[in-house]
Amino acid sequence: MILVKAGGGEAVNWAGLAADIAEVRANEPVIVVHGAHALRDALAARLGVPVRKVVSPSGVTSVYTDEEALDIFLMAYSGVANKRIVAQFLRCGVEAVGLSGVDGRLWQATAKKDLMVRENGKTKLLRNNLTGRVDRVNAGLLRLLLEGGYVPVISAPAISEEGEIVNTDNDTAAAVLAEQMGIERLVFLFEAPGLLKDPSRPETIVHRIPRGSLDEFMGFAEDRMKKKLLGVKRAFEGGAKEVFFGDGRAERPLKDALAGLGTVIS
Amino acid sequence: MILVKAGGGEAVNWAGLAADIAEVRANEPVIVVHGAHALRDALAARLGVPVRKVVSPSGVTSVYTDEEALDIFLMAYSGVANKRIVAQFLRCGVEAVGLSGVDGRLWQATAKKDLMVRENGKTKLLRNNLTGRVDRVNAGLLRLLLEGGYVPVISAPAISEEGEIVNTDNDTAAAVLAEQMGIERLVFLFEAPGLLKDPSRPETIVHRIPRGSLDEFMGFAEDRMKKKLLGVKRAFEGGAKEVFFGDGRAERPLKDALAGLGTVIS
Repeated sequence: MILVKAGGGEAVNWAGLAADIAEVRANEPVIVVHGAHALRDALAARLGVPVRKVVSPSGVTSVYTDEEALDIFLMAYSGVANKRIVAQFLRCGVEAVGLSGVDGRLWQATAKKDLMVRENGKTKLLRNNLTGRVDRVNAGLLRLLLEGGYVPVISAPAISEEGEIVNTDNDTAAAVLAEQMGIERLVFLFEAPGLLKDPSRPETIVHRIPRGSLDEFMGFAEDRMKKKLLGVKRAFEGGAKEVFFGDGRAERPLKDALAGLGTVIS
Repeated sequence: MILVKAGGGEAVNWAGLAADIAEVRANEPVIVVHGAHALRDALAARLGVPVRKVVSPSGVTSVYTDEEALDIFLMAYSGVANKRIVAQFLRCGVEAVGLSGVDGRLWQATAKKDLMVRENGKTKLLRNNLTGRVDRVNAGLLRLLLEGGYVPVISAPAISEEGEIVNTDNDTAAAVLAEQMGIERLVFLFEAPGLLKDPSRPETIVHRIPRGSLDEFMGFAEDRMKKKLLGVKRAFEGGAKEVFFGDGRAERPLKDALAGLGTVIS
């Protein structure tokens, strides 16, 4: 089984990915997790409710999510992005079913409502942050759909134990999903050719990384990439054997990534 | 099996409906179809893209749907409404899974892109109207979820044979779903106590209608109710035995409707 996590940038080639999945799934089941941050950011700006990015005391960036931000998140991720990706897949013969982490408690998270942030040189506490960390996956629902011949197409948000909708990190959730489904191969697609030593220079791509050396790369990874690498570490701890990073903008994004054109971590 | 179609008005009591479904589904499977027109209209206004209502030469009102209107539709129906309803159901112990008609081609529609409308006393042709009429339901996907112990929570849009997302009438789609799933009892919940002879006077409620007399009521039904009655006719032609109209604002909307407090058509 393969898990494909495709980023939410504007330039991801969904038609190419759909064509690849149509081929790959003839041999093994596929689960897709997708982002939609570009769409969410544009919608938030249009609604006059800009996305509020906050930085933790340890330097990790995240998005503060109140009820209104959560509605905008649902509009972009579960509404437009998820259904348009599903339709694209169906046009390529991939019998996709779109789900959020809320549906059937697919992604159950532990809410962490209080958030310490650094703003203007001061550390302060933000309350009622509607986010959480996924720690349980409804593997039964995924198996039901896979056995029925469907490709699950999933995105955040998740649901807390108390039944509240909470924003969550898609990369971490994908890693937990892989662990709980026993998936050994994960493919992360985004808007770069792979892991770059210098994000502004594609020629600095790293083609092979032994899993034991992941920590060395944390140092020069940018924020978003750092989260992906943390997800990858989590996936290996959970039993993954190979992780591929590839260019989601390519003509055949998944085939190229599996052929090792990007970064292979094993 | 019971099909519950709940309207998309602001005052629908989703928590009460969730509590009712938790009880009812102990004895028989439940499928839910929901609207979200109040949310969609508010969002469209906020985005400065008001909903464009058009009237056919025969007097039927519908919404003209271009790509932008469809995105707003997806945001309201598949994004916010669907996921918030699913979360509410989960909080009441109802294992809900939210789907649009796009997912797994759940609602396959025949697109009708050209639309004749009356505007300013003239008849004209609007092209590229992204709407369609549902004529095929993926009953296999619904059975899969029901057998897995889930309550499917469904809303428009649908998908055309060509794989385009199309807006569709939820009431008609619910009737076609009931027909193709062999459902004999349908419950329509909305913001009125039942079918009223005079929509402004609740005391004019009609409690019992023989199915053969439905046409008599078309005359005084308002536009939205007329569509419901057409859906009901369609459902009876497809094998339904009883249709209930009830007040979605009640404390126990489904129990009251099934107890005959609204309108019963049989």
